[in-house]
Amino acid sequence: MISGKNYIGNVLSSLGNITYKTFNPQTNLENEVIYTEASPIEIQTAVELAAKAFKTFKTVSGVKKSDFLNEIANEIENLGDELIKTYCLETGLPEARAIGERGRTIFQLRSFANLVKEGSWVEATIDTAQPNREPIPKVDIRKMYIPLGPVVVFGASNFPLAYSTAGGDTAAAFAAGCPVIVKSHPMHAGTGELVASAIINAAFTAEMPNGVFSNLNSSGIEVGQLLVKHPEVKAVGFTGSIRGGRALYDLASKRSEPIPVFAEMGSVNPVVLLPKAAKNKGTEWAKKYANSITLGSGQFCTNPGLILGIKGVNLANFIQVLSEEIVKIEPTCMLHPNIIGAYESNKAKMLEQKGLETTASINNEVSKNYGRQIVTTVEGVTFLENVNLHQEVFGPFSMIVQCENVDQLEEIISKLEGQLTGTILAENTELATHSNIINSLQNRVGRIIFNGVPTGVEVCAAMVHGGPYPASTDSRFTAVGINSIKRWVRPFSFQSWPNELLPNELKNENPLKILRLVDGEQTAKSI
Amino acid sequence: MISGKNYIGNVLSSLGNITYKTFNPQTNLENEVIYTEASPIEIQTAVELAAKAFKTFKTVSGVKKSDFLNEIANEIENLGDELIKTYCLETGLPEARAIGERGRTIFQLRSFANLVKEGSWVEATIDTAQPNREPIPKVDIRKMYIPLGPVVVFGASNFPLAYSTAGGDTAAAFAAGCPVIVKSHPMHAGTGELVASAIINAAFTAEMPNGVFSNLNSSGIEVGQLLVKHPEVKAVGFTGSIRGGRALYDLASKRSEPIPVFAEMGSVNPVVLLPKAAKNKGTEWAKKYANSITLGSGQFCTNPGLILGIKGVNLANFIQVLSEEIVKIEPTCMLHPNIIGAYESNKAKMLEQKGLETTASINNEVSKNYGRQIVTTVEGVTFLENVNLHQEVFGPFSMIVQCENVDQLEEIISKLEGQLTGTILAENTELATHSNIINSLQNRVGRIIFNGVPTGVEVCAAMVHGGPYPASTDSRFTAVGINSIKRWVRPFSFQSWPNELLPNELKNENPLKILRLVDGEQTAKSI
Repeated sequence: MISGKNYIGNVLSSLGNITYKTFNPQTNLENEVIYTEASPIEIQTAVELAAKAFKTFKTVSGVKKSDFLNEIANEIENLGDELIKTYCLETGLPEARAIGERGRTIFQLRSFANLVKEGSWVEATIDTAQPNREPIPKVDIRKMYIPLGPVVVFGASNFPLAYSTAGGDTAAAFAAGCPVIVKSHPMHAGTGELVASAIINAAFTAEMPNGVFSNLNSSGIEVGQLLVKHPEVKAVGFTGSIRGGRALYDLASKRSEPIPVFAEMGSVNPVVLLPKAAKNKGTEWAKKYANSITLGSGQFCTNPGLILGIKGVNLANFIQVLSEEIVKIEPTCMLHPNIIGAYESNKAKMLEQKGLETTASINNEVSKNYGRQIVTTVEGVTFLENVNLHQEVFGPFSMIVQCENVDQLEEIISKLEGQLTGTILAENTELATHSNIINSLQNRVGRIIFNGVPTGVEVCAAMVHGGPYPASTDSRFTAVGINSIKRWVRPFSFQSWPNELLPNELKNENPLKILRLVDGEQTAKSI
Repeated sequence: MISGKNYIGNVLSSLGNITYKTFNPQTNLENEVIYTEASPIEIQTAVELAAKAFKTFKTVSGVKKSDFLNEIANEIENLGDELIKTYCLETGLPEARAIGERGRTIFQLRSFANLVKEGSWVEATIDTAQPNREPIPKVDIRKMYIPLGPVVVFGASNFPLAYSTAGGDTAAAFAAGCPVIVKSHPMHAGTGELVASAIINAAFTAEMPNGVFSNLNSSGIEVGQLLVKHPEVKAVGFTGSIRGGRALYDLASKRSEPIPVFAEMGSVNPVVLLPKAAKNKGTEWAKKYANSITLGSGQFCTNPGLILGIKGVNLANFIQVLSEEIVKIEPTCMLHPNIIGAYESNKAKMLEQKGLETTASINNEVSKNYGRQIVTTVEGVTFLENVNLHQEVFGPFSMIVQCENVDQLEEIISKLEGQLTGTILAENTELATHSNIINSLQNRVGRIIFNGVPTGVEVCAAMVHGGPYPASTDSRFTAVGINSIKRWVRPFSFQSWPNELLPNELKNENPLKILRLVDGEQTAKSI
């Protein structure tokens, strides 16, 4: 049963007077439940509870945090069909996608559970004392990661489960030992509340302090602003538009105590089609990219919005096949009216740009809120001269830049903004001869792909989901994979601290049997 | 021979028309050499050279970077007496301090040389492909740290060697693979130029690209501002005042592409004297703290500026002994007229605050530019009510807060701004009974010390020199120790990349024999 209320800690609450509904883009009708936006007093209470909960949550053992994370996963599984149905009603996405994303979300939670249960992630580092060192004795110093404090997580519209309420940001923050306050995404408030209830139940079962989690409804920007400005909030996670992410970053930077904002934002994910690959495999790649561009109506951060090739018959063939193939694909429903509205308006703005030509598009009427894919081309020199052409069109849109030569292609890459991914489609033999292009691309991205598509972000330790600005606000961190925990922690040193009062991670006996750096040597031994 | 010119890459240059001299605070006279501030064209050239150098420097092997760092250390040693003499002439500090700081600087350079020679610091992480995984195959993903790009380092006035030209920030940035542009500190421009020449020589010997290092003279704030705003600059390191660090942070945050600024700023380094320690060892601690407060004229980031105790006879005894002991210590010369000017004016402002009493001070005439130590006391309630009393007075100043009880002491700690260090002076038996105080203190600091003094920052892997704002602008990093390299790198993923074209760190064969995380297991084995 969805109540439409906020979770202020473990209490359902609706003191505010702003209400809204979610929307079913498939039927083009509002869903039934009325949601009440969190009021300033509820926001204040949620943050105070989080700050109070932090005092105990930060000292909770890895094993207990692991239980909590696994219990959240269990509770999400227990939500069963109601979660899947609500997800579909609020997003227009098919059931298979909902089930797949639920699986990903649960996998993320269990990955972090395993990480903190094992415990070595704190990077315990010990330099033992040398009382007889000359000219001055060396003191005993021991370091480990500790949590930052309450974290605010903004739900992402395009991943109602995996990057929202109990998504990667939340799972990483809990694993770190940080309480989480979620600013729920208004377009999937019901999905959000269900997942929030799972977290609240899990917190109860795992005996976590009240306030370790709150879920705040919000239809506008005010709730998020109040949260980011609150002195007790110590970090922010966001996935969404450049405009939204930058606004939060600016707000956080202007605080009297600035706090870190990790915002994963837009990207056009450039794909470079090198000449031999265009010649030998152009048709094959064109077919694959027709699918990648339209996957999920193009509503992925890693959607390939920009393809760069060298002008000629082989690139012309690639464009022709891609154009022929992409119109064969049935358009699908986009997430909500704002998204389709932005897609249509950004597409229209792009098509007004001088020199941009459409080579394929769906022009017939489609169901309301369905995203009609389009492929465009432009000359390299035109692209270079007009930065408007470099912007993301979120949706099933792609642009092929026909470069004069390799030098121009490299120049274009070097002028691009930061990107989540870059892809090289090439024969093995041409990689060595195009090292300048690869180096330039590497400089602009967080992940580089050889002969593949950028869509599909594997959840694993080696993944980097992030990149130079504006792909993210801080390229030194990833949003996906176990290392995303590093966003929410800081290193902390104990000097000459009595062994019995040290955290278990740093005690001589190494009771957790974790891997530590002791006097320069990686070891799980005791001291 | 000091030229007074800038190093724009490896070229000595003085195109600007703003000149200045350094100052000998011992003689109260200007030194002879005339320095020319870097002009906008020189700044532009230095950054362009750095951006160009980055293209090759970022691919230089760990072994070659290690050679470069060791060669810098050698060249600094080769500077011999001229460096020590120049240092003393520009700082008023004694020769022993100069020699000690040179040793520390060389140690830092060699530590980073060892780190990158060994190579495991890149945290190579490999998730191998699972082509038969259901429902979709798993791709091969490999991650490692790569450098951010050109880094600007601001020299610190209080550490002309260890935190300046070839200090910790520069050594860490070189180790990471980032070119460095130093904004030289005007008050030790000669020391800076000598060390810069050592780096330039080392870069030549180790065959590093021109532009890997530049040294820019500057007497005002304009050179630093132009550097931080330059689009090709990708990160900033700073050690100094809150006002200076915050200004750079704000400038960097407002860029169209914001960049990370690691500023290590002010701190009062609270020391908590618990009751039993005050009773049993108050006299002993008072003597030690008289030395710690006056060490180097109090010109250390970790100087104990605030001592908190519970009102009573034992605290009164501590204050009395500290007051008696501290006036026995001969005042020493401060770094330069600006520092002594700020010390005297901040001290005067502090003494105007209601309720602050002086218990010991040097009132007789001392040599010009010598810092006269002072100990003050205040009631807990007065301290709580007046945030002006929480501010740092950089110099040999300390304030003892006489708290009514343990609760008030804890409240005071919880209201303090972020700090580099916090110290607990206690009998072992009282730690467990004062866990609230310790937890509160831990929340406010980067390093917590048991029964010691905060001055003296050991250069080792377990050290955290940093902390919650305003101790630093990002508590997630340390400025000291090998992990300070993390400030200047970002993780980067290769997906399905051909083995022979991967960096050595990620190749199947593991030619560097580094420790890697392969499919979840820490190993140095090949794949």
